[in-house]
Amino acid sequence: MSVLVVGSIAIDAVKTPVEEHSDLLGGSACYGALAASFFSPVRLVGIVGDDFPESEFEFWRSRKIDSEGVQRANGKTFRWSGEYSWDLNTRETRSIALNVFENFKPVLPEAYRETEFVLLANIAPSLQAHVLDQMKRPRFVVADTMDLWIESARADLDALLQRVDLLILNDSEAREMTKETSLIKAGRRIRKMGPQYVAIKKGEHGALLFGEGDQFFSCGAYPLEDIHDPTGAGDTFAGGMAGYLAGTVKTVHFNDLRKAMIYGSVLASFCVEAFSLERLRKLTMEEITRRYETFKLMSQFEVPVE
Amino acid sequence: MSVLVVGSIAIDAVKTPVEEHSDLLGGSACYGALAASFFSPVRLVGIVGDDFPESEFEFWRSRKIDSEGVQRANGKTFRWSGEYSWDLNTRETRSIALNVFENFKPVLPEAYRETEFVLLANIAPSLQAHVLDQMKRPRFVVADTMDLWIESARADLDALLQRVDLLILNDSEAREMTKETSLIKAGRRIRKMGPQYVAIKKGEHGALLFGEGDQFFSCGAYPLEDIHDPTGAGDTFAGGMAGYLAGTVKTVHFNDLRKAMIYGSVLASFCVEAFSLERLRKLTMEEITRRYETFKLMSQFEVPVE
Repeated sequence: MSVLVVGSIAIDAVKTPVEEHSDLLGGSACYGALAASFFSPVRLVGIVGDDFPESEFEFWRSRKIDSEGVQRANGKTFRWSGEYSWDLNTRETRSIALNVFENFKPVLPEAYRETEFVLLANIAPSLQAHVLDQMKRPRFVVADTMDLWIESARADLDALLQRVDLLILNDSEAREMTKETSLIKAGRRIRKMGPQYVAIKKGEHGALLFGEGDQFFSCGAYPLEDIHDPTGAGDTFAGGMAGYLAGTVKTVHFNDLRKAMIYGSVLASFCVEAFSLERLRKLTMEEITRRYETFKLMSQFEVPVE
Repeated sequence: MSVLVVGSIAIDAVKTPVEEHSDLLGGSACYGALAASFFSPVRLVGIVGDDFPESEFEFWRSRKIDSEGVQRANGKTFRWSGEYSWDLNTRETRSIALNVFENFKPVLPEAYRETEFVLLANIAPSLQAHVLDQMKRPRFVVADTMDLWIESARADLDALLQRVDLLILNDSEAREMTKETSLIKAGRRIRKMGPQYVAIKKGEHGALLFGEGDQFFSCGAYPLEDIHDPTGAGDTFAGGMAGYLAGTVKTVHFNDLRKAMIYGSVLASFCVEAFSLERLRKLTMEEITRRYETFKLMSQFEVPVE
């Protein structure tokens, strides 16, 4: 089945302690859609300006990413520029220019409205809700969010949570949202705010998944020695999860979400190996499967004697 | 087989944001020995003063913890007092009185010298080495250490690492020791300093295990909502690992260390549920096994359909 992905489409400039690049394709929808496309057809919703490279539309076509829902507006594409700290664990936004994104109102093409799986990648919760308003009973809704919306659009976010099946957020955001220091308490508390499932991303420490009652899954991060650019890792994680679910299961159970979380982690581990979408563009399903199997072995408590 | 445990024996005072207790039994050897005793007989080495409760020697006897190697000296037992931050993630030492520990020179009873498994619980690396000097070819040596020794006794520690099979330390210590920000790089680097295996403890984020080449194992922490007293969790983790190995395997392989690390994590998760050794004193093997199985299920990528 297809997955509808809505979010930002951006042109980024990124500075790490080692390298600096500009005019990079980015945005939560681009990372999410490309990650999801390894597992299922994607229907993309977003907005670009007249400076956006036409070649990207061709690339999407080649990857079964339907871009009928991508609006083209006069003006410049949304631009973001950020700089990472020495250990790549924190970043500062150097500049943001909303440009055509400022007046973005997602409009779903008729063919999109019955999509059964949805990824509301990281954008304002009011826009995420506006997408759901146009849909006919989606089967499973995944939403990503960030500190900005927890701080500045809490009422919108709280309303959205009633309509979300799986909420994805990072550890500091989960703590901020609940005022709990324990991530275990935070995850369980967020479930009570609406979503049936909650995934907490912990960067180098992996991720936690919470379901009904004592349903709980925990995984580490795939061990990488060198990280080139963390940009988009969270969006890729969400895209991998949503894409895997859409492409693989009819009714989502907790055990499907475990595998989805691992595929999300695997995709994110590839994402950070290069700037922008470069590693994901060249990635093959065979590489994904191999890393999934290695990762599984690295996390197994008991291994049959060789 | 037995495991020899050497370390500090202390009387602690602990303050958390919620509770405060004094005259608590503590010290790395007490936590390590009790944790190890669930899996194998223990030979304890340490020193106590004349204020040390006689009842503890009876308790040890009841748990197959041989205390022939515990010296009794005139004066007071080593005392430590600490206070935890609001989120229990950091602590400050409020006071330390070395007392009889100041002139401690571990002397091994004859019967101890051929013990095949050794846990050098957290004490000065020179004392840890002094214990090894008295032993006849131990089969497997586990050592725990801390920031204090990395900062103040680095040469002793570096020399000790040549004689250690498994080094256990926490994430900030691994980074401090190697000046690497990536824990993956840090773990691999420490292996090159001597120990065949390295375990990095990450508190609420679990632990990492490094072996030869690309041997790697990662696990989360057992999910606890309420932590009462983190004191001794690291010592308990080390004791659980060493005890499991001594009691279960003849020749240690990487896959044994996976299970050992999980048993260490399980024991540590019980330890923090109450002050001092109180939870561990009442713990049963059945509870340990049940939590191990739950933990395994919570970490499994793929679960057979129910």
